[in-house]
Amino acid sequence: MSTTFQITDVAAQARTGRLVTPHAEIETPVFMPVGTVGSVKGVPQDILEELGAQIILGNTYHLYLRPGVETVRQMGGLHRFMSWDRAILTDSGGFQVFSLSELRKLNEDGVTFRSHLDGSSHFFSPESAMEAQISLGADIIMAFDECTEYPADLARVRTSMEMTARWAARSKKYFEAHKSEVPWGEVSGFEFQVSGGPSTRSSTPDTRNLAAELRSAGQPRAAVPTKGAQRPKGLLLREHATQALFGIVQGGMDRELRRESAERTVEIGFPGYAIGGLSVGEPRALTREIVESTLEYLPKDKPRYLMGIGNPEEIVEYSGLGVDMMDCVQPTRAARHGLLFTSEGKISIKQARYAQDPEPLDPNCGCRVCQRYSRGYLRHLFASNEILAQVLNTIHNLSFYLDTMRRVRHSILLGEESRSLSGIWSQPNVRRPRIQA
Amino acid sequence: MSTTFQITDVAAQARTGRLVTPHAEIETPVFMPVGTVGSVKGVPQDILEELGAQIILGNTYHLYLRPGVETVRQMGGLHRFMSWDRAILTDSGGFQVFSLSELRKLNEDGVTFRSHLDGSSHFFSPESAMEAQISLGADIIMAFDECTEYPADLARVRTSMEMTARWAARSKKYFEAHKSEVPWGEVSGFEFQVSGGPSTRSSTPDTRNLAAELRSAGQPRAAVPTKGAQRPKGLLLREHATQALFGIVQGGMDRELRRESAERTVEIGFPGYAIGGLSVGEPRALTREIVESTLEYLPKDKPRYLMGIGNPEEIVEYSGLGVDMMDCVQPTRAARHGLLFTSEGKISIKQARYAQDPEPLDPNCGCRVCQRYSRGYLRHLFASNEILAQVLNTIHNLSFYLDTMRRVRHSILLGEESRSLSGIWSQPNVRRPRIQA
Repeated sequence: MSTTFQITDVAAQARTGRLVTPHAEIETPVFMPVGTVGSVKGVPQDILEELGAQIILGNTYHLYLRPGVETVRQMGGLHRFMSWDRAILTDSGGFQVFSLSELRKLNEDGVTFRSHLDGSSHFFSPESAMEAQISLGADIIMAFDECTEYPADLARVRTSMEMTARWAARSKKYFEAHKSEVPWGEVSGFEFQVSGGPSTRSSTPDTRNLAAELRSAGQPRAAVPTKGAQRPKGLLLREHATQALFGIVQGGMDRELRRESAERTVEIGFPGYAIGGLSVGEPRALTREIVESTLEYLPKDKPRYLMGIGNPEEIVEYSGLGVDMMDCVQPTRAARHGLLFTSEGKISIKQARYAQDPEPLDPNCGCRVCQRYSRGYLRHLFASNEILAQVLNTIHNLSFYLDTMRRVRHSILLGEESRSLSGIWSQPNVRRPRIQA
Repeated sequence: MSTTFQITDVAAQARTGRLVTPHAEIETPVFMPVGTVGSVKGVPQDILEELGAQIILGNTYHLYLRPGVETVRQMGGLHRFMSWDRAILTDSGGFQVFSLSELRKLNEDGVTFRSHLDGSSHFFSPESAMEAQISLGADIIMAFDECTEYPADLARVRTSMEMTARWAARSKKYFEAHKSEVPWGEVSGFEFQVSGGPSTRSSTPDTRNLAAELRSAGQPRAAVPTKGAQRPKGLLLREHATQALFGIVQGGMDRELRRESAERTVEIGFPGYAIGGLSVGEPRALTREIVESTLEYLPKDKPRYLMGIGNPEEIVEYSGLGVDMMDCVQPTRAARHGLLFTSEGKISIKQARYAQDPEPLDPNCGCRVCQRYSRGYLRHLFASNEILAQVLNTIHNLSFYLDTMRRVRHSILLGEESRSLSGIWSQPNVRRPRIQA
């Protein structure tokens, strides 16, 4: 099996684990920055590496529209296309299509929708969503589901949940039949590394020949992109690796339907399970109640992924409940609006009070932004609509999220009871500024 | 004298030199990236350092409006405000105000103008422009001049040139009386380094006391900002250092008036001389003719700065004529429009032909963009309006300009005849990809 999961430490309901994917090993619980169209907005890939991002998320809907799945396949898959050799997860496109409420039509086969870019008509089914995600070539891909709207009556939620279950079975069937079509073996990029061998550029004739030799020798899985000098070495793609398809539990805000959805999804059988359909407008207490009750019906030995959540308090809270993976646009989107997360609370950097503030954003943060720039400078960049404001703000917010998860893992390792965000950041052993690797 | 200039090698009319400023030593001929409001748009300061930017330019007009001169002064000057401890040059604001043709009114005293941001009314004179530039605290500041419009009749050009000469004398007089007011000595930032001592953070009580002790001991010049771990060490601010004020030659497109302007400016006496008022719509051959004739009347032992020029061919060409310093928005602005300079010519990255191109932008470029990303990915980022497109495109274009100047200096060092851009890039000794420091 290409993807394995091993629990390493447990503290009450929380656990740390090691999720081994074709491109990288991931320490969980993990937060996954969102890189919608193959870029975490404003952040170069080497800085994502420096921040310790272990896995990023790509949106199939957006990538399908632009640059198009075929282009990404031709370029050797999303890893090589965006020059990222750590792990990637793609969503199925279901949630994004769900967001286009005015532009979509749904039936048993799948969803017809109009592009938000040009109004052109498209169709996603469990099969076509799998086909797209296999072509994109993420390490972890998601079953095609229907994200039920909120609020919805019980009959509607049941109908929707049952279709998601049938779509999960169709997703798995297509995936099992086509998973060998992942484009990882197509060595066509301009630089790559052979396991144990030197890093070379394929723009030289020698390397092009080497790539051809590898293909004809039937060793495509041994070649992976490792562009850039700052890449971590040693984590090379395993031979005969395939993607992992995760199932998604729906069932709206009804605990009984969530239980039934979980059981039906587990019965189909996946190497990991996601909880979808939350954070769609319901009260936060209800989100927590549904997550907590749903987790009871998911296998303890498989990774559990809570989709689209959350703020810094929530990623700590849900890690405490035993969630292993989370993603959210919040750190990146809020950054672009000047809302910054710190160990001392939120800062709206646009405020005039920061205009002549010489202090760093967060005195407890070791990120390259807090090590170099003052609040006064960041406030000026934001007020002046400078591109650098978006870049630096995003780097800091991601650093805060990723550091928070590091602290959560450390806390679980120490066997400590679940902590709050402020508790996590007040741990004396990590209060001093951290030096970046 | 705080600022000195020494010619190190000569090849025909071209020369290399060493320009020593309070914050850094600069190898000339040098290209200065434009950092309008205290940011080279989209590029973090550590990447500018990595690219080898020796000196950047700030625009007094823009900084005066936002964040305001007093804010920059309170924050310890522009170096500390933007966390940049290499050299900075500020323009006088004259050219920018000249660009606001609809919004300005000019007389002997100075210029009344309206802000392009909010329409508010402001006044710049030689004295107030010096006051602003002293508060900003750049290493090199510029006399307040009138940039004559093009075309203009001879009488108008003479009147304008003569006023520039009177304004130059007033600029120098004010500067000499007030140059000690530069804010470099005000240690209020959150991190700094004492000459020969350790780097520390002033957010700790110990360091705050140290800063206070330094002030009371009358050693303000010994403390300079050195935030961030990646700073070059050793180039500390000299004691009693002051800014250098450069004069500006005007005189439109008339060689005789240019000669007279040069002679009058040299008679006032400055440590460096700029040629202003070019690239304002005149034919390129005329620009070259005026530059060439004006250079004859400028002292050979002082740095010569050609303002606002040019494209890659021009920076090679004018270096060959003996120009020592140039600045231009072209590499940064063109990058944001997807126009990229390479050793093999210009590329408009938006073109569909690059959509599946796995090659780097420029096979002869060692920048972090060319080392990691493909044309296909850069084309996708640009077509998708991703922030990262602007960041990466700007980094590459600046790398191309700065590498071009490095090659020009190398060529002069070898005593070679003046070369064209393609000649500079075809030198066999530097054709292989360069590894970044």
